[in-house]
Amino acid sequence: MKKRLGKQLTFVKPIRGYGVAKVLDSSHPEFKEGDLVWGLTKWEEYSLLPNPENLIKIHHTDVPLSYYTGILGMAGKTAYAGFFEVCRPKKGEYVFVSAASGAVGQLVGQFAKLAGCYVVGSAGSKEKVDLLKSKIGFDEAFNYKEEHDLDAALKRYFPQGIDVYFEHVGGKLLDAVLLNMREHGRMAMCGMISQYNLPEPQGIKNVMQIVLKRLHIHGFTHRDYDHIVPEYYEFVLPYIRQGKLEYVEDIVEGLENGPAALVGLFTGRNVGKQVVALAGH
Amino acid sequence: MKKRLGKQLTFVKPIRGYGVAKVLDSSHPEFKEGDLVWGLTKWEEYSLLPNPENLIKIHHTDVPLSYYTGILGMAGKTAYAGFFEVCRPKKGEYVFVSAASGAVGQLVGQFAKLAGCYVVGSAGSKEKVDLLKSKIGFDEAFNYKEEHDLDAALKRYFPQGIDVYFEHVGGKLLDAVLLNMREHGRMAMCGMISQYNLPEPQGIKNVMQIVLKRLHIHGFTHRDYDHIVPEYYEFVLPYIRQGKLEYVEDIVEGLENGPAALVGLFTGRNVGKQVVALAGH
Repeated sequence: MKKRLGKQLTFVKPIRGYGVAKVLDSSHPEFKEGDLVWGLTKWEEYSLLPNPENLIKIHHTDVPLSYYTGILGMAGKTAYAGFFEVCRPKKGEYVFVSAASGAVGQLVGQFAKLAGCYVVGSAGSKEKVDLLKSKIGFDEAFNYKEEHDLDAALKRYFPQGIDVYFEHVGGKLLDAVLLNMREHGRMAMCGMISQYNLPEPQGIKNVMQIVLKRLHIHGFTHRDYDHIVPEYYEFVLPYIRQGKLEYVEDIVEGLENGPAALVGLFTGRNVGKQVVALAGH
Repeated sequence: MKKRLGKQLTFVKPIRGYGVAKVLDSSHPEFKEGDLVWGLTKWEEYSLLPNPENLIKIHHTDVPLSYYTGILGMAGKTAYAGFFEVCRPKKGEYVFVSAASGAVGQLVGQFAKLAGCYVVGSAGSKEKVDLLKSKIGFDEAFNYKEEHDLDAALKRYFPQGIDVYFEHVGGKLLDAVLLNMREHGRMAMCGMISQYNLPEPQGIKNVMQIVLKRLHIHGFTHRDYDHIVPEYYEFVLPYIRQGKLEYVEDIVEGLENGPAALVGLFTGRNVGKQVVALAGH
């Protein structure tokens, strides 16, 4: 994991990533020419995908196809499973989301409002914070880069403490969150982007809070929740069609702009789900 | 919590602790003179306990009364709830217990064997390690003070990794355990004795493992499991009566020896559950 992006990327094999594709030819009985699919594809214009059984056929095309890389794809599954299955929120609870304007975070915030929770998000620019409070509908949001004391910031936004934390960031923010959790709080951990490119991860000092407050901390990945997709679509598609869920995307055109978009994730350059469009969409 | 024991103890009020007592007088309808009770009592020979509803009446006196400070008291409830309810062990799983010869750890190890698991304990002296392997019945045990590299030690005892960790210690041991957990592993956190007297807690670096291995980490206290006591007694009393569960106690006589026994917990002086006997037992 160390300095994974510090080295020059060498494209011996194409990078894999979640994408949307049109079937040109298939010997698999479930897929035929012209079908649209989403799943683990490759960073190339034409791909040979030897495990089509892992792809999911797209049945609903009245929504933007790019949504199948986000709200109807991995990000949506992650947000839905992580928030409802892992965190088990109750009405009126206090929810904190880090990386809140990202592919997953913006959905967790909206799901929290649908569940009757109070939700605050953190992000890394004024533009993102404004987006969270206006378009996406978080109750509050703050720019973590402008807070010298993250513990104090969380105490300002959560004087009663945090019941549910959706973790994407790790490091100092996680340490501050631990201090502000309420008894029996739940933390869904699906990533720690602040730590991926450090030569050594930052130490978390407040783990004793796990004991003192009887916290539940669950690491998870969307891959353990494939079975939840039909239930999730039944839940989410009506909201999308009625315009009751926003999904902010940051679309760059052309494979040649993919690497810069990828690296931009680690500096927070993107606003919303980062998508690279290869063909007309 | 900082330097709590660094200051001189001043006995303005008697220390509270879990004890066994005989009722001398009571106006509570459930308790009468001569009854034996266990629960939160005080470090004094005669006590006025204004909340007797929190005490539990002792019905089984064919076992040592001191057991109600341990295997039939808080420690037993902690071990049973933490292992079976929090960790939900499956037959054949790999279990690691820190502070394994202590009041709770020695029980977790024996419960793990009853559940068909492979169990390894760590402790801080050769005497304790021998006790774990002989009398208490752990599959393996090691002296953490003799291991320069705790990660390597755990890899030696758990080449397949750890499914269940029962945590009492925290600090460097927790960091090493995180590296050695298996996917979907569970960690029951009921204490971190290595951290209580540090001016600042040690940072835990390997929290990313929670995400990578989809770990479940639950802080808990026996206080959330009062309802489990009848079920626990039904489980544990037959084993005690049949001599199928060992319970090692370290009994000092006399209240005047209590403070030294308390401080000894933090240097690991005691072997087994530390008990202070005030009256004949």
